[in-house]
Amino acid sequence: MNIPVTPPSGFRDFLPPVQALRTRAVEAISRVYRSFGFSQIATPCVEELSVLMGKAGGENEKLVFKILKRGEKLELSQGTSELADLGLRFDLTLPLARYYVRHQSSLPHPFKAFNIGPVFRAERAQKGRYREFYQCDVDIIGSDHLGCEVDVISAMFSALLELGVEGATVALNDRTLVAALLDAAGIPQDKRGEAMILLDKIDKVPEDRLMGEMTTLVGPEAARVVREKVLAPEGDLERLRSLAPEAVNRLSRIIKTLGGVFGKPERFRLVPSLVRGFDYYTGPVFEFKHPGLAGSLGGGGRYDGLTGKFSGRSVPAAGGSLGFERLMLILEERQGVAAGGPDACVTVFAEELRERSLGLAAALRGEGLSADVYPGLKPLRDQFKFADLRGCSLVLVIGPDEAARGKVKVKDLKSGQEWLEDEAGAAKSLRAKLPPK
Amino acid sequence: MNIPVTPPSGFRDFLPPVQALRTRAVEAISRVYRSFGFSQIATPCVEELSVLMGKAGGENEKLVFKILKRGEKLELSQGTSELADLGLRFDLTLPLARYYVRHQSSLPHPFKAFNIGPVFRAERAQKGRYREFYQCDVDIIGSDHLGCEVDVISAMFSALLELGVEGATVALNDRTLVAALLDAAGIPQDKRGEAMILLDKIDKVPEDRLMGEMTTLVGPEAARVVREKVLAPEGDLERLRSLAPEAVNRLSRIIKTLGGVFGKPERFRLVPSLVRGFDYYTGPVFEFKHPGLAGSLGGGGRYDGLTGKFSGRSVPAAGGSLGFERLMLILEERQGVAAGGPDACVTVFAEELRERSLGLAAALRGEGLSADVYPGLKPLRDQFKFADLRGCSLVLVIGPDEAARGKVKVKDLKSGQEWLEDEAGAAKSLRAKLPPK
Repeated sequence: MNIPVTPPSGFRDFLPPVQALRTRAVEAISRVYRSFGFSQIATPCVEELSVLMGKAGGENEKLVFKILKRGEKLELSQGTSELADLGLRFDLTLPLARYYVRHQSSLPHPFKAFNIGPVFRAERAQKGRYREFYQCDVDIIGSDHLGCEVDVISAMFSALLELGVEGATVALNDRTLVAALLDAAGIPQDKRGEAMILLDKIDKVPEDRLMGEMTTLVGPEAARVVREKVLAPEGDLERLRSLAPEAVNRLSRIIKTLGGVFGKPERFRLVPSLVRGFDYYTGPVFEFKHPGLAGSLGGGGRYDGLTGKFSGRSVPAAGGSLGFERLMLILEERQGVAAGGPDACVTVFAEELRERSLGLAAALRGEGLSADVYPGLKPLRDQFKFADLRGCSLVLVIGPDEAARGKVKVKDLKSGQEWLEDEAGAAKSLRAKLPPK
Repeated sequence: MNIPVTPPSGFRDFLPPVQALRTRAVEAISRVYRSFGFSQIATPCVEELSVLMGKAGGENEKLVFKILKRGEKLELSQGTSELADLGLRFDLTLPLARYYVRHQSSLPHPFKAFNIGPVFRAERAQKGRYREFYQCDVDIIGSDHLGCEVDVISAMFSALLELGVEGATVALNDRTLVAALLDAAGIPQDKRGEAMILLDKIDKVPEDRLMGEMTTLVGPEAARVVREKVLAPEGDLERLRSLAPEAVNRLSRIIKTLGGVFGKPERFRLVPSLVRGFDYYTGPVFEFKHPGLAGSLGGGGRYDGLTGKFSGRSVPAAGGSLGFERLMLILEERQGVAAGGPDACVTVFAEELRERSLGLAAALRGEGLSADVYPGLKPLRDQFKFADLRGCSLVLVIGPDEAARGKVKVKDLKSGQEWLEDEAGAAKSLRAKLPPK
């Protein structure tokens, strides 16, 4: 046999307990985003390559899983650059911009959207870095007001609180402030992009190595200024304000409002070295951090130029994305992963009694409980073992004696207690005995 | 601009009202599957090509979107058959078999699983046939008992009832009965597979054309027997039983049990011409029909040999899949698609009052309502229009007068009524005034 049973490198199967946790988290995040007035949208996993790569290709080129042309189109293609026409999306922001341009006449203005789903990146898989992973995006398109950043960050922060993730902090910065700082350090404009890419690695590589690379790029004097003025943990607010007054005033107001709304001003800070990777950001950027986690728990920013790629007309926009996989690391560690079996396992004593068991299970479901009927026919001992293995609370038996008397035997697997219920009232009675959900 | 704004052919964007309906349907189906004791699992969208194509390739070859190799691996490949190494899953059954073989030592036995997610097929897109669509699978692996078919079909039927889809019927058959019928018609074994593929088209092509093709394949005499004995709407049960006693007895018991559990015996029928497309089915097969819909609303069957592809050891298994996209057609038509805006839109009267509006919205959310704060700053008239466009019920205003007196002005957009609430108690009070969810 040479058919593999493991998924490809970087792709994952999820066992039931972990998947239950993932579904609950997606539902909780959706609930919070919805409670902020964001409407859920969806875009396909597959997009035209030209949408994903833009005109230049560039950085995204390496991220994209490309889909081979089919049939005749493949036969006619020449050279590896013509072999593919479609690709898997690597984020949810680029598809959102396409979506907005296509549907804007049917959408409210401004448009508050959220999108949760898998994205795909053809990077080398590493511990904690996957090639298929979930993103939970929330965006406002059509307004340049700082209320957008407040709304997006509030929704993300509230989603973390809803999941019981306490202690998150938000670092904020503005791309125009970074540009002004690099300018003030004497870094010429043509090296600004590369310098920003270096700054973005601050959490991933040691500072010494970072500064070594910065020195190579811009020379020792500019690198020294960057270390003192940009990488300083606390920026001198008045100096920053003098360099980029508009950006810093805007950031200060966003930070003050968020601190007020959540009653936790210390959680929202201006961090002048924050860049965020994607090159589509044009103004404020932000990143969620958590004490239990290296790297970020999500982030986002303003990307006023992105719709212009599709329509030639730029519409202001801001949004963010929770890093779902990192969030799961925190949730799994904190909550553990419960077995999560059904409330009740109904055994089948004999084939002619299966219908009685099925009827009982249906009644339990009618009361909002989950109830399993043993699908085969094995000795009761095996059926009890099956129930126990699955983390089920109660096992129910309708044997010939019980059936004749209209009774159900109940065993609580945790306490070991056994008792009889009337078959007709069993569902209601057991509902009352189980803890509320 | 030559970057397209529409998704590739066969792929779809979903506008907010439709997406809201889709999410509610997925959540309802998951709830029902869970209430039957099935555990949710997930597998990646991307699998190794060898998993998807099997050893022979065969029929699946045309279904699979193939993913181009990356970097050096691509450079080294020779000929179009070597260009791809990965592919997009075209169903959830094949990945489940792989998953089961890999993880069986960590899973209960038998294993009751459900999996809901997108699948991808490189077929030509047509009306109602998409290249990315959802499947909602439910399966039991590890038992050959007919209780599995009962359980799987019950869960699917109950999910339809939960969604308010009344009137579904289930056609059942057995692959071994079809084989016996074709045998009795004098069709040699080497033409049986092709004859089954023809029978599977019964809902898609006119009967005359079907019989024409059957005559070409097996000759006029055998085709006549097929028309009379296999395509007859009501099979002669005793004759069928004499041809394949085990299969027919099993089907009869499944049908009787389902009819009893749901109190609707007329909804479950033996249809001797039913085949179901995939070649992995080995025993009972079934298909859900709905009076409002040509074609099927889902189906499934027993596929005892599938895990053997991966492990060499076959484990009995049965499962089914609800056709989510067809289900959506029924739901959209019946329920219409509601606007579904937030419960309350909180306006921002002036920038210095934004924090008051944000605080009010937070209080509303604390009461379980959804509340939107206008992200920008526009005249109230525009903010009211925004609320109206989104189908919002209540618009709230805290202007300077209201702020000074600790009040909130409320307008009900449906009745046109306006009134004042105390800012402190507004959330509780409005919660009581809105209809319960």
